[in-house]
Amino acid sequence: MKLSARNLVPGKVKEVTVGMVNAEVVIEVAPGVEVASVITKNSVDRMDIKVGDEVKAMIKATSVMIAKD
Amino acid sequence: MKLSARNLVPGKVKEVTVGMVNAEVVIEVAPGVEVASVITKNSVDRMDIKVGDEVKAMIKATSVMIAKD
Amino acid sequence: MKLSARNLVPGKVKEVTVGMVNAEVVIEVAPGVEVASVITKNSVDRMDIKVGDEVKAMIKATSVMIAKD
Amino acid sequence: MKLSARNLVPGKVKEVTVGMVNAEVVIEVAPGVEVASVITKNSVDRMDIKVGDEVKAMIKATSVMIAKD
Amino acid sequence: MKLSARNLVPGKVKEVTVGMVNAEVVIEVAPGVEVASVITKNSVDRMDIKVGDEVKAMIKATSVMIAKD
Amino acid sequence: MKLSARNLVPGKVKEVTVGMVNAEVVIEVAPGVEVASVITKNSVDRMDIKVGDEVKAMIKATSVMIAKD
Repeated sequence: MKLSARNLVPGKVKEVTVGMVNAEVVIEVAPGVEVASVITKNSVDRMDIKVGDEVKAMIKATSVMIAKD
Repeated sequence: MKLSARNLVPGKVKEVTVGMVNAEVVIEVAPGVEVASVITKNSVDRMDIKVGDEVKAMIKATSVMIAKD
Repeated sequence: MKLSARNLVPGKVKEVTVGMVNAEVVIEVAPGVEVASVITKNSVDRMDIKVGDEVKAMIKATSVMIAKD
Repeated sequence: MKLSARNLVPGKVKEVTVGMVNAEVVIEVAPGVEVASVITKNSVDRMDIKVGDEVKAMIKATSVMIAKD
Repeated sequence: MKLSARNLVPGKVKEVTVGMVNAEVVIEVAPGVEVASVITKNSVDRMDIKVGDEVKAMIKATSVMIAKD
Repeated sequence: MKLSARNLVPGKVKEVTVGMVNAEVVIEVAPGVEVASVITKNSVDRMDIKVGDEVKAMIKATSVMIAKD
């Protein structure tokens, strides 16, 4: 399956915090570099996401802003 | 200035494509790993974003989805 | 591959309008019901999206608002 | 009132899960086809959204990605 | 019609720039305070948005980040 | 630091509601005009956001829709 989402960054799940509706999943994408994701609790359960899993952070290009010093 | 946006990934601008309203900026965040961003042409002009710039890709955690094999 | 994006609605591409950076793809998901999507021109090219293609509209649950009369 | 949001898909509320800040609302838009939405608990209360309500899922075109086999 | 989108800020259209797919609409929401919006060209045409129009900027709460000095 | 996010609206924090994963922050941007934001609990803690703080609501132009009567 091909996806229009331009950004797929591989990493390992480091932390999962589950609330009543949403969950926060922290993914380590490089040594010391983390990407935080908020998805539904339902998706965490359905995909069985847990610490140590190899996953990909997926981000639509329109959602990426730029900061410059 | 502190920002609520959780994800700030440093990289170097590799490519800038400018349209009439939007522009696409491709950032190399690691050797061979690119992050594509779509921001307004106005922001590219105002921030003077060009190939070779050191920038940060900034992403709100809610915009990050997860894929798992 | 499992995806956290909760909404995957199948349909057929009815119209593709390509700009310099973005493209608009109109998908007919039911007779007379269309879903419009804006993705990068790069994704349209890479995925070879054209009128008549069977595709899925993919939407993160956080991006869905609700209107009620 | 006219809205720039391109996608308005009518359906019936099938499930409401309320957390402390957000709520998940599942809308059946066609027999067997559901759309999940995450909005604030505040909006669910203010709009009095409950199972059985006729509503519309509203989605900005920029939030719609495309998947293709 | 009630909308789940929490933020509706009234203002006057100050500038419209139209591209092939998207358009940028700048709204003056207070003296000297502007809000920029990117919507599809299709919506600008359909809603007949032009300089001087009284409109509302509509923003889902999840899309609002916070900066603090 | 320059940011591509086009919209930065100053205001004062009026209300903070914290859940397990997310938090809702209501910002008064003008007398009687409020902007609601949903960010992670982690960001509220890290930035020490509390009632009375002077902050800025930050919004990417692509996330701004338009309503017109």
